[in-house]
Amino acid sequence: MSAGDPPWALALHGGAGVEPDRNYDRAEAMLARLVLEGEARLRSGEAALEVAVDLVAEMEASGLFVAGRGSGRNALGQVELDASVMDGARRRCGAVAALQGVASGVRAASAVMEATDHVLLVGDGAARFALSHGLEPIRDLDRWLTEPDGYDPADIEQSHGTVGAVALDRAGRLAAATSTGGTYNALPGRVGDSAVIGAGTWADHDVAVSCTGQGEAFIRVCAAHTLALRVAGGDLAEAAAEAVLVSVAEAGGDGGLIMVTSQGEVTMAFNTPGMKRASVSSRHEARVGSIGGALRPALRSQPQTRGQ
Amino acid sequence: MSAGDPPWALALHGGAGVEPDRNYDRAEAMLARLVLEGEARLRSGEAALEVAVDLVAEMEASGLFVAGRGSGRNALGQVELDASVMDGARRRCGAVAALQGVASGVRAASAVMEATDHVLLVGDGAARFALSHGLEPIRDLDRWLTEPDGYDPADIEQSHGTVGAVALDRAGRLAAATSTGGTYNALPGRVGDSAVIGAGTWADHDVAVSCTGQGEAFIRVCAAHTLALRVAGGDLAEAAAEAVLVSVAEAGGDGGLIMVTSQGEVTMAFNTPGMKRASVSSRHEARVGSIGGALRPALRSQPQTRGQ
Repeated sequence: MSAGDPPWALALHGGAGVEPDRNYDRAEAMLARLVLEGEARLRSGEAALEVAVDLVAEMEASGLFVAGRGSGRNALGQVELDASVMDGARRRCGAVAALQGVASGVRAASAVMEATDHVLLVGDGAARFALSHGLEPIRDLDRWLTEPDGYDPADIEQSHGTVGAVALDRAGRLAAATSTGGTYNALPGRVGDSAVIGAGTWADHDVAVSCTGQGEAFIRVCAAHTLALRVAGGDLAEAAAEAVLVSVAEAGGDGGLIMVTSQGEVTMAFNTPGMKRASVSSRHEARVGSIGGALRPALRSQPQTRGQ
Repeated sequence: MSAGDPPWALALHGGAGVEPDRNYDRAEAMLARLVLEGEARLRSGEAALEVAVDLVAEMEASGLFVAGRGSGRNALGQVELDASVMDGARRRCGAVAALQGVASGVRAASAVMEATDHVLLVGDGAARFALSHGLEPIRDLDRWLTEPDGYDPADIEQSHGTVGAVALDRAGRLAAATSTGGTYNALPGRVGDSAVIGAGTWADHDVAVSCTGQGEAFIRVCAAHTLALRVAGGDLAEAAAEAVLVSVAEAGGDGGLIMVTSQGEVTMAFNTPGMKRASVSSRHEARVGSIGGALRPALRSQPQTRGQ
C-alpha cells in the first residue's frame, strides 16, 4: 500500500485441533476462496462487520466446518447453534445460543444486535425471534445436514471446527464473528465460548478477536477480552496471543484464535497441532494453512469445492 | 483484627436502580440478616464459595428480589432464571440461562460448575440437567411465585433487583455469585449479564465481582472482567469501579457492582439513585443501605421479615 492508504485486514479460522494425518484440502480451498472474496470487498471499502458476518455465513453453509450445515448433533440428536458478532466501532454485539431450527447462527446473532436492544437470546426464544425476523428456517434437519448446496456428503461427515472471521475495514472499523454447531454428542443446552462475548468473540477500537477450541477454558479466562486489554495496554500482538493461550491451557483447554488490530496487523495463534486459517491485509498477500505453522499463498486457481 | 489475622470480606447486592420514593425496609432487613450470617460463617473459616452461593440462594428464596421466587414473567408468562458462580481459587465457573422449572438459579449454576466439565447450560438442557441432578423443581409456578415460605405476597409484587454476593474467606479464596429472574415482560430467551462470566460475574486470585443493572450494557463492556484486570493492573478499587460504570453508561446502561479484593477491601458502586447492598469485613462492621450513599450498621435487632 502507499503511505497514505488506510490499513485493512482480514483473518478467518475454521477451527483449531486439526489432526495431522487428516486431509483438509477442501476446507483450505474454501478458506482461500473466502479470503480472496473478503480481500476484494475490503479493498472496495466495504464494512468490516458485513464482510465478517457474510464470510462466516458462507462457512456455515458449506458443511465443511462444525457450524451451520456441518454441525454435530447433541446427545438428543438435536442441532443447537451458538454464534456471536461484535461491531467494534459501535461497541455493539449480538449472540444466540442453543438455537434450533434456524439455518445460520451468525445471521441470527447479527439480527439480535441490529434489531433488538438485547445482546444474547437463547433456546426457544432465540428461535422464535429469528424466525419472526425472517431468517431462513431449517425445514428438514436430516436433509439440511446431509445435502448442503453443491457440497459432497462426505465433507459433512468429516466436518471439523468452529468458524470465525475478524476484519478491519478501510474506515478503521473492526468487527468479529464466531459460529459453531456444537460438540458432537454434547449435553443438550451446553454453550461454549462462541456465544459468549468476551470469551469467544470481542471487538473494540483496537482489535477484533475470534477464538476456537475447548470453549469452557476460553470462558474461564475470558480469553478474547483478555487479549484485547493486553494489546490495548501495549503488549505485542503475538506475545499477548501466546500468553492468552497459555492461560487457556492452564484452564484445561486448547485451541486457537485470530486477531486483527487497528493497525492492520494479523495474528493467528494456536496451541494445537494446527488451525485451519487464512488471512490477507494491506501488509501481506492472501495466505492459507491448516497443519502446523506453514502457510501458502491463497490462489484463485486452487481446486474449488464441488459445484462451485 | 490483629496484625496476623488473615483478612476476610463479604458484600451483597439486591439490585441497583432503586427508586428514591420506594420503601426498601424489608429488603434491607433481609440483607442485614444475611450479611451477619455470612460474617459468622466467614469468621468461622467457611469457604467463600459456599457462603456466596448460600446467601444468594437465600435471597432467591425470599421473594424480595427479582431472582428465584421474586422473578418476573417474560412476555409469554414464563419465568426464566439466569445465574452464574465463579470460584476464583480454582478459576472454575458455572452458569445457567433461560432456566425454567427449577427453584434456584444459583444452585443450578453451582451444579454445572461442580458436576460437569461445562460452564454454561441454557434452556431445556439446563432444566433437564438440573432436575436430573436433584435440584428442587417448581411444581406449581403460580403458587411458587406468590407464596414464598414465610413472606408476604405483597413483597413479591414489589420485588426488585438482581441479587449477588462476593466473598473473601480466611484462606484467601475469592468467590462470586449472581442470580436474576428476568426483566418483566422481556423477550423470551433474553439473557442478561447475570449468566455471562466476565460480564456480570468474575472471580480470580485478586478480586470477586458481581454486577447488577441493564445487563446488555455490562456485556458490551465485559464489565466484571474489565474491573478485575484494572485492579490487577494496580488501579485503586474505587476508581476502577467508577471507570467501569462510566463505560457501562457509555454502552447505554446503568447499574452497580460489588467487589471484594484479596486484601479484604470492599467496593460497592453504582450510577443509579441507589443499590440495595450490605457488606462486612475484617476491616469494618456490618453495614447496609439502599438509597443514595448512606450506609447504617446492620443490626440483629432490625425488624425481621414476617415469619422469621
